[in-house]
Amino acid sequence: MSAIEKTYTIEGMSCGGCVNSLTRVLKSVPGLEPVKVEVGRAVLRFDPAVITADTIKAAVDRAGFSVIAEQ
Amino acid sequence: MSAIEKTYTIEGMSCGGCVNSLTRVLKSVPGLEPVKVEVGRAVLRFDPAVITADTIKAAVDRAGFSVIAEQ
Repeated sequence: MSAIEKTYTIEGMSCGGCVNSLTRVLKSVPGLEPVKVEVGRAVLRFDPAVITADTIKAAVDRAGFSVIAEQ
Repeated sequence: MSAIEKTYTIEGMSCGGCVNSLTRVLKSVPGLEPVKVEVGRAVLRFDPAVITADTIKAAVDRAGFSVIAEQ
């Protein structure tokens, strides 16, 4: 396993409740570790051989938000 | 099927992003219809023979919030 960290810009978040909500949903994805979640931004750690960009986008969608950029 | 509506008081929500997030997670539960979701409150429609109080509490928890009362 070779984990990387990526930063995602996220639309639709505006308060600490949103941060809690997104953090909970991201933590429910096996292999995905939310390193830092704040309003509009999430730093995630994962093995790209296991977790795809689509998996991350789907998890953010399930939480009611949208990925608008990754870097 | 005999659906009822119940109102849940929810802790941890403070903006429209929280409302979107909770709504999305509640809609993902088969048989559970969010009639109205606003900051701190959700009106849900469901068949109590199918959906239990624990199912609803677990869904709200998954979204990062907490049920503190139902009526």
